[in-house]
Amino acid sequence: MTNFNRHPDSYHHWDLKIDGDVAHLRMNVDPEHPFKSGYELKLNSYDLGVDMELADSIQRLRFEHPNVKVVVVGSGQERAFCAGANIGMLGASTHPFKVNFCKYTNETRLSLEDASTRSNLKSICAINAACAGGGYELALACDEIHLVNDNNSAVSLPEVPLLAVLPGTGGLTRLVDKRKIRRDRADVFCTMAEGLRGKKAKQWGFVDEIWPKSKFADKVQERATELAASMPEKAKAGITLEPIEHQRDGNTYTYNHVRIDVEPEERRATLTVQGPTGDQPKNGADYEQAGSAAWAIRAFRELDDALLQLRFDHEEIGLIVLKTRGDRDALLQIEQDLQADKGHWLCNEILLLMARVLRRWDLNARSMYALVDADSNCAGAFLEMTLACDRVYALEDDAVKFAIGPLSNGTLPMSHGMTRLHNRFLSTPEQADKLASEPATYDVYDADEHGLITFLLDDLDWDDEVRIALEERVSMSPDALTGMEASLRFGGAENCDSKIFGRLSAWQNWIFTRPNATGDEGALTRYGAPESAKYDWRRT
Amino acid sequence: MTNFNRHPDSYHHWDLKIDGDVAHLRMNVDPEHPFKSGYELKLNSYDLGVDMELADSIQRLRFEHPNVKVVVVGSGQERAFCAGANIGMLGASTHPFKVNFCKYTNETRLSLEDASTRSNLKSICAINAACAGGGYELALACDEIHLVNDNNSAVSLPEVPLLAVLPGTGGLTRLVDKRKIRRDRADVFCTMAEGLRGKKAKQWGFVDEIWPKSKFADKVQERATELAASMPEKAKAGITLEPIEHQRDGNTYTYNHVRIDVEPEERRATLTVQGPTGDQPKNGADYEQAGSAAWAIRAFRELDDALLQLRFDHEEIGLIVLKTRGDRDALLQIEQDLQADKGHWLCNEILLLMARVLRRWDLNARSMYALVDADSNCAGAFLEMTLACDRVYALEDDAVKFAIGPLSNGTLPMSHGMTRLHNRFLSTPEQADKLASEPATYDVYDADEHGLITFLLDDLDWDDEVRIALEERVSMSPDALTGMEASLRFGGAENCDSKIFGRLSAWQNWIFTRPNATGDEGALTRYGAPESAKYDWRRT
Repeated sequence: MTNFNRHPDSYHHWDLKIDGDVAHLRMNVDPEHPFKSGYELKLNSYDLGVDMELADSIQRLRFEHPNVKVVVVGSGQERAFCAGANIGMLGASTHPFKVNFCKYTNETRLSLEDASTRSNLKSICAINAACAGGGYELALACDEIHLVNDNNSAVSLPEVPLLAVLPGTGGLTRLVDKRKIRRDRADVFCTMAEGLRGKKAKQWGFVDEIWPKSKFADKVQERATELAASMPEKAKAGITLEPIEHQRDGNTYTYNHVRIDVEPEERRATLTVQGPTGDQPKNGADYEQAGSAAWAIRAFRELDDALLQLRFDHEEIGLIVLKTRGDRDALLQIEQDLQADKGHWLCNEILLLMARVLRRWDLNARSMYALVDADSNCAGAFLEMTLACDRVYALEDDAVKFAIGPLSNGTLPMSHGMTRLHNRFLSTPEQADKLASEPATYDVYDADEHGLITFLLDDLDWDDEVRIALEERVSMSPDALTGMEASLRFGGAENCDSKIFGRLSAWQNWIFTRPNATGDEGALTRYGAPESAKYDWRRT
Repeated sequence: MTNFNRHPDSYHHWDLKIDGDVAHLRMNVDPEHPFKSGYELKLNSYDLGVDMELADSIQRLRFEHPNVKVVVVGSGQERAFCAGANIGMLGASTHPFKVNFCKYTNETRLSLEDASTRSNLKSICAINAACAGGGYELALACDEIHLVNDNNSAVSLPEVPLLAVLPGTGGLTRLVDKRKIRRDRADVFCTMAEGLRGKKAKQWGFVDEIWPKSKFADKVQERATELAASMPEKAKAGITLEPIEHQRDGNTYTYNHVRIDVEPEERRATLTVQGPTGDQPKNGADYEQAGSAAWAIRAFRELDDALLQLRFDHEEIGLIVLKTRGDRDALLQIEQDLQADKGHWLCNEILLLMARVLRRWDLNARSMYALVDADSNCAGAFLEMTLACDRVYALEDDAVKFAIGPLSNGTLPMSHGMTRLHNRFLSTPEQADKLASEPATYDVYDADEHGLITFLLDDLDWDDEVRIALEERVSMSPDALTGMEASLRFGGAENCDSKIFGRLSAWQNWIFTRPNATGDEGALTRYGAPESAKYDWRRT
């Protein structure tokens, strides 16, 4: 059972210091504290445990330290900024773990960019020494990259020449799509194990600034101060994020507002999300008062944790059945209040948290079916969760309602930037516009008419049809379903974020399974061994 | 050695009949004529040989029958429209062949859509019986899908439930991106082996029209006539496409204007393209006179053939070295003349042929390096070929020139719709605009200044640096290079076409290598056998 809770006081691998409106987040990986035993985290290389602390830092900067406007991501080690993902760990990991690890680290880096774009928290990567692979991919996720100009400090993506895999944590896509580096220069860079240093790295666009070693710390600090001064104030003090707790009883995980019932034999899990009860904050000031116990924060942090538990600890669960519960009006009221005060830093952060968790839900490599009956609370963000599902089964019953809330018109976008309603109604964008911009509650017949339901079933058919549907789904090839869902869930245009999952990660998934990388004689397996890798040279 | 030449007179699998401005292309696969022995092409299932004839038909309709405005794609068999790609063939094929086969069939279907979009040749798919998998993917590539409304005729994509692979010939992407079918309905459709019939198929958007069996032929004919009447006239008579011939002498392929020198030990091939010599047509009427011997047609058909030879018959060649030769002005003159008369149907077709062949070049799953020296003809479409390369090596010599021609500003787009100049200069679109819209010849220093060159090398370094570069490239993992190149070559936005290769095919590549599909107990291997497939249930 994986514990995703982290706290700066007990970090093993990072050091977070707040200095006015600038934060310093320094990587200093303890080689003796790997996430699993069997490898040593040398040279600031990372594994899942290291990345959990990074994800925690970013989340805490947003909620606990809204006074911080710039975070400087650096290293606490002289010899290495970061050597990337640990090769021993990758070589020893199963395919599902490797894929889940990469997806998690991608989401962490996207959360850093999300903070920059939507939450006025800028990032500067201060590269004081060698910066390779996933280390440079972390740099690419920052707003600015500063590099020491000396004979040793290089940025590099040596995965292709040394390991026969891709820099799969967004690296390739961000080179050409975010930094818009010329494709031939990107090609050269990605095939040279030694990478680029100093002037050339800057000239070709791989870093933004280079500084002599003697002035490096000062120059970075100067720039951080300058950048912070250019950013608007958010708030003096934040709220404390209390740990997420759940009880596990056999195959049931119980949180305050979320519950998972895992049925391993059936290869499915039921995810139940519960709407708010009791008094809830009405505006940003109230939320500051209430802290992380408020439903809007707690429920989505719990959901986030639950999704990660399913990903990492229940690999054979092929289908997640979504059930929404609670009071519709109470949920919609919260969304309305958050939206009304979204100029408040904390309301903004809460809305962004909800959006990120919903994107993690969209990107689940599991089938997702929503069951909507008279007990359901298919409203607002819970309706978004429902629409994110591969199918929606609804009971033909007057008590069943679908309520589009105020956040469905752009506040909770998918990875490719579209709303779930627009993504659903690609052939009728004007219908999507209308539905999204006019929050309303529909009975089940109208909801069906409007296209929100896949199968509307009457009372007589419900049990049997649902049972058969669930059984059928989990009988199919998990790989084929993953590829199919990745292709059908994201219609329309792609952007940098969605290309990371759609194009880059798809190729990486393939490469991870190929003997040239992970076979007995493959490069990832043989890394560090005296014999070099043997390749099947056929190009496909 | 694969012969890609086909001619309607000797088709085994299709019947092409021209009836005024409507053509009838009927699939009637001869089970006894598979492309390779070892399987039987039952129920109008197809293999590479069947698809070569289809590709040939589309090409001939465009060049030989410009009077045709609508092609009706049908079946010559009562019991089956098309059962899709032959499973026995897929099960028995190597991974590289499967991938190359899928890429080729994708390009064929895209050429049908290209004819519709850019060449006023519309297509109607007339589905008279069961239409499954690749059969329905062919239908999806047509402009309209008409289905017999009876109890037997269904459209289906049974790959996921029956074979544990994806409908990888554009099917998934076209469902949501081209036909804009609701993603939950697409999900249902892609997981039901039996597919959809009649009214439901139409109601959910999987077909456009349904007709009773008794009226089917008449209704389709009626619609074809009506559609043809709505299209502009192109021309009464076309030109004849003579077969493409080449001499093979050991590892050298010699065409009229193209040459390949394969060096199997070095795992590389040199592709030499030769510009025009002698008198060439000045306008559309001249081209009609000259026929397919004209350089602009012949050279690009030869290049197309050469690329396919390399793909299918030289799987271990990892690097293609591009050399351009001939007279720059003669090449630019041809482009200028074609562009000036592009309202003429044949000039239009020639330009579209050039664009398609260049896209096939972009999509090569091989590394591509251009060598530009004083003998090079780095102009116009040959400059486009150069820019499509992963790297451009140029010799520092006053005689070396780079000439941007009149076609670089949108006439020869990449799959994702961008020009190669805009794709190269994503960070400076205004520079790309300027370069693309102002054809000019640059010396090598200016070309370097403008960013057209990766490495500018002087005479002393040239031989050694080039040799080392070529050797280094072919030493790396072929899989990692394929994934890297696919990610770096296509920056910026994606569209339906590029998503077929970038998102869908990447997932399919992965799935093809997974034991759940192609292992001893995988679904593709066990298809038709008494035992059902066994799956590793871990979802990734």
